Amino acid sequence: MQSKNTPIKTTSIYTDTIIALATPSGMGAIAIIRLSGSEAISIVNTFFKSKFGTKNLNTVTSHSIHLGNIMDSDKIIDEVLVSVFKTPHSYTGENIVEINCHGSVYIQQEILQLFIKNGVRHANPGEFTLRSFLNGKMDLSQAEAVSDLIASDSEVSHKIALQQMRGGFANEIQVLRSELLNFASLIELELDFAEEDVAFADRTQFLNLIQKIAKTLKQLMDSFALGNVLKNGIPIAIIGEPNVGKSTLLNALLNEERAIVSDIAGTTRDAIEDELIINGINFRFIDTAGIRETADVVENIGIKKTFENIEKAQLVLLLISADKIKNEGIKVEEELNSIKEKYSNKKILPIINKVDLLNDEEIKNKKLKIENAILISSKEKTGMEQLKEELTKLANIGSLSNNETIVSNSRHFEALSNALFSIREVQKGIDNNISSDLFASDIRQALHHLGLITGEITTEDLLGNIFANFCIGK
Amino acid sequence: MQSKNTPIKTTSIYTDTIIALATPSGMGAIAIIRLSGSEAISIVNTFFKSKFGTKNLNTVTSHSIHLGNIMDSDKIIDEVLVSVFKTPHSYTGENIVEINCHGSVYIQQEILQLFIKNGVRHANPGEFTLRSFLNGKMDLSQAEAVSDLIASDSEVSHKIALQQMRGGFANEIQVLRSELLNFASLIELELDFAEEDVAFADRTQFLNLIQKIAKTLKQLMDSFALGNVLKNGIPIAIIGEPNVGKSTLLNALLNEERAIVSDIAGTTRDAIEDELIINGINFRFIDTAGIRETADVVENIGIKKTFENIEKAQLVLLLISADKIKNEGIKVEEELNSIKEKYSNKKILPIINKVDLLNDEEIKNKKLKIENAILISSKEKTGMEQLKEELTKLANIGSLSNNETIVSNSRHFEALSNALFSIREVQKGIDNNISSDLFASDIRQALHHLGLITGEITTEDLLGNIFANFCIGK
Repeated sequence: MQSKNTPIKTTSIYTDTIIALATPSGMGAIAIIRLSGSEAISIVNTFFKSKFGTKNLNTVTSHSIHLGNIMDSDKIIDEVLVSVFKTPHSYTGENIVEINCHGSVYIQQEILQLFIKNGVRHANPGEFTLRSFLNGKMDLSQAEAVSDLIASDSEVSHKIALQQMRGGFANEIQVLRSELLNFASLIELELDFAEEDVAFADRTQFLNLIQKIAKTLKQLMDSFALGNVLKNGIPIAIIGEPNVGKSTLLNALLNEERAIVSDIAGTTRDAIEDELIINGINFRFIDTAGIRETADVVENIGIKKTFENIEKAQLVLLLISADKIKNEGIKVEEELNSIKEKYSNKKILPIINKVDLLNDEEIKNKKLKIENAILISSKEKTGMEQLKEELTKLANIGSLSNNETIVSNSRHFEALSNALFSIREVQKGIDNNISSDLFASDIRQALHHLGLITGEITTEDLLGNIFANFCIGK
Repeated sequence: MQSKNTPIKTTSIYTDTIIALATPSGMGAIAIIRLSGSEAISIVNTFFKSKFGTKNLNTVTSHSIHLGNIMDSDKIIDEVLVSVFKTPHSYTGENIVEINCHGSVYIQQEILQLFIKNGVRHANPGEFTLRSFLNGKMDLSQAEAVSDLIASDSEVSHKIALQQMRGGFANEIQVLRSELLNFASLIELELDFAEEDVAFADRTQFLNLIQKIAKTLKQLMDSFALGNVLKNGIPIAIIGEPNVGKSTLLNALLNEERAIVSDIAGTTRDAIEDELIINGINFRFIDTAGIRETADVVENIGIKKTFENIEKAQLVLLLISADKIKNEGIKVEEELNSIKEKYSNKKILPIINKVDLLNDEEIKNKKLKIENAILISSKEKTGMEQLKEELTKLANIGSLSNNETIVSNSRHFEALSNALFSIREVQKGIDNNISSDLFASDIRQALHHLGLITGEITTEDLLGNIFANFCIGK
């Protein structure tokens, strides 16, 4: 068992010095090559020639920057700035050197090769952050948040990742877990003195704690549906009859020609997905094939996919042609109601497209027939602002602004869910006043699952899975 | 006129503070956002909250690094490392702050926007290096080398750029120019005292200098053909009859399926170009349409392009099928000779492909018929090493290893060429013993063109052209 600030004993594979490109790959003004490990400073010093006499990087102060050349024997590879971070005041807790070189791909490779030739190992994905975790600089959920933070592409996903990186709910879990741990030891003590029938643990206090933990876990788990959606984008299906203008709407929203549009009904076959960030929230729009009876095989596959996409969506935009309302009036309403009935678990937003085909008088009269409908013309890009506002409102993420804790990581959700299961077993045991030896193992299970979130409990597999998804250089 | 180390008076557009992303665009572990200008440190300080109390970036030492958060009011944008460089000890010579943030595109944009909202201007391409030049930190040819260095993709192009950045031939030009400038003033003096018929300038010394300059300029200009080719890749055309395996050879060299190959003669129509670095030298291979009589219009356009590509190439690989040699023997030799005659100004390297169709005995006998031919099978990828060695030898860049000066920039070539023209006019004048007032303007012309190389003479247009080709953030 491992508390946040006590590094677990590092095995030999973590004491060597590693190197990786830390900046995005490709050409840029500057690239950063980062080394971490006990030898990081001394090995860079071997290949570094200061611009100002014979400066020795081993003796400079931490967090200082030095101008010079990286040399391979007599050959200059590049003029660089070298930043020195001394253990333990660095990202990994080890000695770190960052080499800021010119951002040519050739130079990046030459510098990497120079050090690899001289015994430095190329870092695995996420290995810098893994070392940071192993050296007690951050807990596991914070380490995971680093990866989310780098991948964040909207205000909301950024906020969730940053909150998690700064401690987030892991702190709360850690406190609850250590309280539970105290009770667990008392109960284990009872088991040791089983014959004497003494109760070291106060049953009422214990039940209170168990209830508090159960409530917290439930709350965190409830936040996951939202958290997951916010992180990955709220899925929205755009559906409607063929040629009602679904692809044109997608293009209008994205402000680009993403989907092929034509006057021919059945143009879209593959479901086209694209993301759009509106007011800081990530939406995933899914343009679908129009639903109709058709003999076209490919189109039919597309229509089948449309139904699947409705199932996946959190919100459905049902496009209706203004034209049709004008001509068929009441029939449209009936169709809408039947769709609402069929997908009663989905939020359906009716949208009347092609209002450019109606005159003002007609708009006034027809609008009333469909409740809460939004009038747009995706061809003329009118009504887009109102639609975007409505989407933001429906996304309903007001809760996030109150700094409420959000779980967005499915690994955490699984651990929370397992922990809650065990906690409820314990609760049952106490309620039924059964002997503590019967629920002691459930307590251990709960401790285990809670520990997996913060990394107080780790296995090699777990760490492998988490850090394999990191990018190289972090 | 402007000497290297005296900054020209900066106009108001260069005193504001600029910002740009310095690392390649896209997602990575770390991104660098760089600010330069008199306010760079104080403005970052406004939005920076140190992890360790109330640290003030305005009072920290130069070349130091600080951990903290970039804050927009109460909102944390990211946890960052901030590097502070104080004027004049920075790349631009101004105050510079580099913000190392998490490499999410969202975070990069948020930080850029925060500072732009608060009065920092987004930098133009190359503006950091332009400021470095204007502040006398480097001469113009060195500034240009920065861009070349970033774009360098082979050992040779890297070496040329690095040599130029470290002074290169510009130093030599500068010395010659200042000697010429001395004589110019003496000659101008003669013009002022024209009636008195005195000669302040020693004609023999002057002629020696002119000859020395002419010789140097000639040498530098001669190096340009090589320099240009080394920088941009040595163009090599692969030619031969249809279906002799030209595309297969290109694919074998590149080790990928770059060109579409088929058994159908005339498969390749567009000339396919790709680069390959062999032993540090960049080669540009051009796969061409096979030359034959055909009625196919598109193919005929391709064949016409083939002839053009032969003209552009420095080296021509003429593929001959082993099959054909076996069957037609002497005829092949005749054809080869006629091609050699037609392109007598090109180096033609005969390559016998499809040797897999011959047995050992046949190889021995047939090989002799074609002088210096290389035997390969591009299908079975044999003979590739020998071909690559031969190419390296033919590229003949031995000279570069002797640290000989190489001009690779066409702007420099043009200036050298113009300067040499004027210098030769001066030389003619002296040779013909004509009055100095007749060649004084040629001296001024030569001084002007030489000054353009180092940046002692600049115009706004010139600077605009040079730095517009830089990447943003450098």
